[in-house]
Amino acid sequence: MASQFEPPSGTRDFLAADLRVREHVFSAIREVFERYGFEPLATPAFERLETLTGRYGDEGDKLIFKILRRGEHEASGEADLALRYDMTVPLARVVAAYGSQLPVPYKRYVMGPVWRADRPGRGRFREFTQCDVDVVGSASPLADAEVVCAAADALHAVGVRDVHVLVNSRRALAGLLDAYGIAPGAGGGVLITLDKLDKLAPEEVAGELAGARSVDAGTAKDLVSDLTADDAVDRVRARLGKTGEGRAGMAEIDRLIELAGPVVGEERIAFTPRLVRGLDYYTGPIFEVVTCGVPGSIAGGGRYDHLIAALGGPDVPACGVSLGIERVIGLLSEDAGVTPRPAVAVTIMDDDAAADAMEFAAALRHAGLRTEVYLGSSRKLARQLKWASDRRAVFALIDGQRERAAGTVTVRDMDSGEQEQVPRDQLTAHLQARLASPA
Amino acid sequence: MASQFEPPSGTRDFLAADLRVREHVFSAIREVFERYGFEPLATPAFERLETLTGRYGDEGDKLIFKILRRGEHEASGEADLALRYDMTVPLARVVAAYGSQLPVPYKRYVMGPVWRADRPGRGRFREFTQCDVDVVGSASPLADAEVVCAAADALHAVGVRDVHVLVNSRRALAGLLDAYGIAPGAGGGVLITLDKLDKLAPEEVAGELAGARSVDAGTAKDLVSDLTADDAVDRVRARLGKTGEGRAGMAEIDRLIELAGPVVGEERIAFTPRLVRGLDYYTGPIFEVVTCGVPGSIAGGGRYDHLIAALGGPDVPACGVSLGIERVIGLLSEDAGVTPRPAVAVTIMDDDAAADAMEFAAALRHAGLRTEVYLGSSRKLARQLKWASDRRAVFALIDGQRERAAGTVTVRDMDSGEQEQVPRDQLTAHLQARLASPA
Repeated sequence: MASQFEPPSGTRDFLAADLRVREHVFSAIREVFERYGFEPLATPAFERLETLTGRYGDEGDKLIFKILRRGEHEASGEADLALRYDMTVPLARVVAAYGSQLPVPYKRYVMGPVWRADRPGRGRFREFTQCDVDVVGSASPLADAEVVCAAADALHAVGVRDVHVLVNSRRALAGLLDAYGIAPGAGGGVLITLDKLDKLAPEEVAGELAGARSVDAGTAKDLVSDLTADDAVDRVRARLGKTGEGRAGMAEIDRLIELAGPVVGEERIAFTPRLVRGLDYYTGPIFEVVTCGVPGSIAGGGRYDHLIAALGGPDVPACGVSLGIERVIGLLSEDAGVTPRPAVAVTIMDDDAAADAMEFAAALRHAGLRTEVYLGSSRKLARQLKWASDRRAVFALIDGQRERAAGTVTVRDMDSGEQEQVPRDQLTAHLQARLASPA
Repeated sequence: MASQFEPPSGTRDFLAADLRVREHVFSAIREVFERYGFEPLATPAFERLETLTGRYGDEGDKLIFKILRRGEHEASGEADLALRYDMTVPLARVVAAYGSQLPVPYKRYVMGPVWRADRPGRGRFREFTQCDVDVVGSASPLADAEVVCAAADALHAVGVRDVHVLVNSRRALAGLLDAYGIAPGAGGGVLITLDKLDKLAPEEVAGELAGARSVDAGTAKDLVSDLTADDAVDRVRARLGKTGEGRAGMAEIDRLIELAGPVVGEERIAFTPRLVRGLDYYTGPIFEVVTCGVPGSIAGGGRYDHLIAALGGPDVPACGVSLGIERVIGLLSEDAGVTPRPAVAVTIMDDDAAADAMEFAAALRHAGLRTEVYLGSSRKLARQLKWASDRRAVFALIDGQRERAAGTVTVRDMDSGEQEQVPRDQLTAHLQARLASPA
């Protein structure tokens, strides 16, 4: 492909086959969310620049696509708008804007593109679809359980069956650090380091805790050892029993597993002490969904009770999950999206037949049959049958002078090559019957 | 609404009720296009700036949303990307990029947002959905007929029944100007003035022709009089018979009407001499779809044989139609989109019932029933029934201590208020049966 015709770096064109796979996934997920009573929401592709800046940390801010002012202000080189970076900031704006018009709690799902000026790479795009489900305005543990179950059900609906839900709680993590005598102020940095247990060896994580995070070396080693031990769950549970915050965190973990376990499968959901999640806005239960053979998570979320307020909305409790829908699509085989076969390909034997062809096609289409009309310039039958075959049509119609004289049309079965004469006024009924019960 | 929470000027948030109307329209139209064998396409929201600039004339260029360069280049104040302004330039890029992978002809439909920095106004937005159907690679009049019929069928499918298709041809218009002795070079400007016959009085248009367009005053008067007379069709047809280009143009008009007429209705399609269409890239038949009581057109298109080449693609014949989907949505009543009623609202009488409630909900959802669980903090029945009623649920489930002791659950018909006890293990089957045949 000549480079000037490629889509911009980090973006993709979706031709029909790929797009059908994506639409199939979107629609299956949408159906699950609707069954849960989540409502759809759509917000603009761009927001005012000041709505977005300062929300994603310094690193995030650099990845925002900014839109230049227009007209006489263009020369200033300043931006006043920016492409949506996630779906959470627009949600906060919507909750602030339409509060009283929204149901309480406001359960919404959203599926749409977001844009981040990340360095493009394998499976990493600058335009990608984000799929979020959130419950705004409920502090109930049932809300956390609902988003966990909705995520698991949605993944199941698109064919990702072997899922496991890892559960932890930010209150439990705070209680754990407290039990180790790590000052609450240091917690954020400590959690960022602990989040690396996925990628680094335990000793390296302990080293970073003792180094960059100024944790006492012995404490760092004990903490990492507790989190990575085979009996980590028991060790951490015992530690958490010693403080009020620890017990509260452990209770919310147990409650979430109690409520969601029977739905997702008791053996598929478990307290996972080393689960941290990178973002610092979580306030309660957190979770990730993983599946066998796929590194990293395919969904993740948690409770973030004060984030909506921090983003400019009212101070309401909230929780949600984001499905890694691009990863999920990547896991699916290409045949997940069905490329539909045209039922009928209408050939054009001569110019006199063209108007009849349009009428046949219209009748078949109105009957719901996918019908294509030959739009090329050849009037040779063999050439047009080649076209019908390339299109994978089930039947081809042939309407030559002989057929018109006899008041019939020839129906050719493109798989068997068998042909039969059908009275013109019975054509639609005939094809409907044959397609309903193939010979 | 506090202004900082409004969406940016000229854009809209779509809450569930509005979004469902839109999705209903999109999906009905998509179904029609699929029956015609058009394939879906999706391209990125932004293109390289140089792909877009210079394509839309000076006025159009000013309306392009440009994206600032990122990182160290941000300070330059320069743009390198721009938001998609229409769907035709991306189509040209895709045809150039994937030529051999695309079927011939390439019949594609697209529905998605485009962005124009127009002054926002009544029914005019900076972010709006564009819905296009195009056939690239066929010079056949059947291709023109297909896009006309697809547009009319799509409008019919979304409830716009009383449509009329106005047909003309750029070749006929060129032949007409030629018959009046107007130099071909002046044609573009003359057509732009003639396009105002919709809005201005005939004398004003004749005046502009004689003034700004330097047409002989008598000729201008005759031309406008021919185009606006009651017998304009006969007058213009006679004029066109006098030149080769005129006859060729008239022939393509007649052919399009002959092919599409039986499908859209003979009385619903007519040669319309004063139809011009503003864009200067059309090369053959042009058309617009209008409906009673709505000023302006709700769809328009035509043949544009060299545009793909001008936009950087190969020189292939092409034709297409754009549906004014935002106008169509504006015509529909709000009840076009069905806000679904939850089948079941699950109340939570006490914390012990919460896990059971999740299991009931899961079973009902897996059976395909839209089910909501109470996520509030109240444990009062009256409060929760109010919630179920606000949500418009068909049934509410009540699972108190008495029910648990009896091994039942109470099903309340939210319309009649009638309640019945149902064994817990028969709940899903019971509700499925009642919803299938309401009493």
